[in-house]
Amino acid sequence: MVTFEKILGGGITSAQGFFACGVAAAIKYEGRMDVALVAAEKRCAVAGMFTTNQVVAAPVLLDRERVKNGYARAILINSGCANACTGEQGLADAKESARIVAEALGGRTSSCAAAGEDNRPPEDEILVCSTGVIGVYLPMERLAAGAKSAVAALSPNGGADAVRAIMTTDTVPKEAAVALTIDGKRVVIGGMCKGSGMIEPRMATMLGFVTTDANIGPQALDTALRLAVEKTFNRAVVDGDQSTNDTILIMASGGAGAPRTPLTPAHPQWPDFCAALREVCDQLARKIVMDGEGATKFVTVRVKGAATERDAQLAARSIAKSALVKTSWFGCDPNWGRVMCAAGYSGAMVDDQKAQVFYGAECVFDHGKVVMRDRDRVQAVMKERQFEVVVSLNLGNGEDTVYTCDFSYDYVKINGDYTT
Amino acid sequence: MVTFEKILGGGITSAQGFFACGVAAAIKYEGRMDVALVAAEKRCAVAGMFTTNQVVAAPVLLDRERVKNGYARAILINSGCANACTGEQGLADAKESARIVAEALGGRTSSCAAAGEDNRPPEDEILVCSTGVIGVYLPMERLAAGAKSAVAALSPNGGADAVRAIMTTDTVPKEAAVALTIDGKRVVIGGMCKGSGMIEPRMATMLGFVTTDANIGPQALDTALRLAVEKTFNRAVVDGDQSTNDTILIMASGGAGAPRTPLTPAHPQWPDFCAALREVCDQLARKIVMDGEGATKFVTVRVKGAATERDAQLAARSIAKSALVKTSWFGCDPNWGRVMCAAGYSGAMVDDQKAQVFYGAECVFDHGKVVMRDRDRVQAVMKERQFEVVVSLNLGNGEDTVYTCDFSYDYVKINGDYTT
Repeated sequence: MVTFEKILGGGITSAQGFFACGVAAAIKYEGRMDVALVAAEKRCAVAGMFTTNQVVAAPVLLDRERVKNGYARAILINSGCANACTGEQGLADAKESARIVAEALGGRTSSCAAAGEDNRPPEDEILVCSTGVIGVYLPMERLAAGAKSAVAALSPNGGADAVRAIMTTDTVPKEAAVALTIDGKRVVIGGMCKGSGMIEPRMATMLGFVTTDANIGPQALDTALRLAVEKTFNRAVVDGDQSTNDTILIMASGGAGAPRTPLTPAHPQWPDFCAALREVCDQLARKIVMDGEGATKFVTVRVKGAATERDAQLAARSIAKSALVKTSWFGCDPNWGRVMCAAGYSGAMVDDQKAQVFYGAECVFDHGKVVMRDRDRVQAVMKERQFEVVVSLNLGNGEDTVYTCDFSYDYVKINGDYTT
Repeated sequence: MVTFEKILGGGITSAQGFFACGVAAAIKYEGRMDVALVAAEKRCAVAGMFTTNQVVAAPVLLDRERVKNGYARAILINSGCANACTGEQGLADAKESARIVAEALGGRTSSCAAAGEDNRPPEDEILVCSTGVIGVYLPMERLAAGAKSAVAALSPNGGADAVRAIMTTDTVPKEAAVALTIDGKRVVIGGMCKGSGMIEPRMATMLGFVTTDANIGPQALDTALRLAVEKTFNRAVVDGDQSTNDTILIMASGGAGAPRTPLTPAHPQWPDFCAALREVCDQLARKIVMDGEGATKFVTVRVKGAATERDAQLAARSIAKSALVKTSWFGCDPNWGRVMCAAGYSGAMVDDQKAQVFYGAECVFDHGKVVMRDRDRVQAVMKERQFEVVVSLNLGNGEDTVYTCDFSYDYVKINGDYTT
């Protein structure tokens, strides 16, 4: 049983060796922070996961290639413009943004890095991420100015500004950090992310960033990231839309307090590191769903007893994505028939003569029989900010859990008038 | 080129030999019509198509078997209770409802049928359909009383009442009828249907009923129905939810004005009959989408130039189902990036360097380039009650068209408080 310390107020700069900041560059609106930079003292191992949408944003095209090298020095992130569906110019803009950061980092003299040209990182160690409206070109003049300001503003305490700068329709910043002991040394993992529409399994308009001072190489980092994301970010559903920009990146500095033996799956404390990374990703994913566009409820959908694990996934996601189910949650209406209905069209094997449905501990449907004994008690469960809907299919051992939220008037309001 | 006459105000009783009615049976609410009956003078050829949801309502289980016999005499329909997820009792209730109708029809003396026991149809020639809340048992005492009143109320002009009795969240009744000439005789095809949530390709909370006085056998009728539904009802998307109860039934009386040679695919006017049936189904499907829950816009999504027809379907449905796309329509926000994004995650092959997006005639995205020249003109298109969104993928010859609507506050309102 691994124990780790949750770092209250921790985030992207909690781990040793990382700097960050947020600056206002008027990418879309005046006077709000919209460019963030996360940079390390020296180059870090890096791993990334990206949207599976066939239409991908320019920064995703760039980063997908660059993370293959295994090392990165900094990540420039802008909100307000997704730089997606922007063709060759979009890709050129993404590359130019990275070049500007590399140049500025090279000229910098601060605690972030020793002075002098020697410290200028190769351009392909700079990653870029964008989030915001699709189909608009980056305002390169303003972005360039913002990127330069950002390099100057880097701070070991800059995490709080960085997380604000990456927000779009998010209403709260989303950060998490934990510390654990590996080989007797304190290792920190911290991160930040943003949602909040277009959240769908396999990652959506979500950008997530994690840093750690653990000593771990690119390949092991990639393995650990995939394990963590599969059970966390990839289980978060807001509206079933999957964005062109989804990206999660992790950088490992191997900084001051890190143990000497690099972490690999062979290391005795590998499971501890993976559990701690999963914890950070889990906290971040939950925060995204909790702050889903217009969401008033955080709902955990668990499907048990499916014929296969794949069936459990299909059913859980279908329930979590159903507009009819989500609006019933908003109205605290125990309309469990919609839950069964969504399971029924999910593609999973479902036999309503064997299935059971629970809201919290209240069974409402049992082996083909309607058993909602006390509607008020079920509604009491649904009136909570968080509750669980459990479907037992009683056909096998497949299980899956998805985090999701309800569908409210505000979802429509937020998304009916977004680009304007 | 087939020509047919649209019958203004026509519906389920426009064809010769059919009777219908709507009565109030207090299935869910007092004082509104909620039981409809459609009956023929004598037994008719019948064909049906049903939901592909794995969780199906009791009446679907019953009707799926009964239409295999190829003949039916009447259809009893209730709104207010879906009789789904109701197990063995639900199936027993559905059978009992049919038995009551058969018995009452047998005892009836009217223009609908000659008096006497001889006219009592076999129970398995009575079909039943239900729509409404899932997971509630039919109130059999009230339904039985309603079914008996309905038999007494059957009228050759009862279509207008019948269509009102099957409404749930529909705001308007939905009917259509056309007449055409086959072998020199006038043949009528008329129908009614109801939506209006849970509308998804492959039929949703939709019940559709069509009658015709054409002389056509069960097998040909089934073929014609499948052809028509594939391009009409199965192209209508409201919210992506697919119900447990979707049913479309067609009865052919071979009544008074029908030609002597039965219609089969070998008949020279087979294409005319199919076109007329498709026209009726098309009008009904459009009315469902136009009256989609909370809808303020009717949007035709056309995908052209897909690598395959299947790809075109995937992309068109993905666009039509995207909550982000639908809310942008509601807000008259030409956020075409969401359209490309939804195409991108649809599973269809998409290359944004080759794709084009149009709102009406306005091109907004062209081969990887943002070309929205005049935002006001695009918004003017979107401010219409009906408009078209066209995506040209420019990868092949696959085409598909889907009818859909926007997502408004009222969708949330209607579905957040439905069972209560």
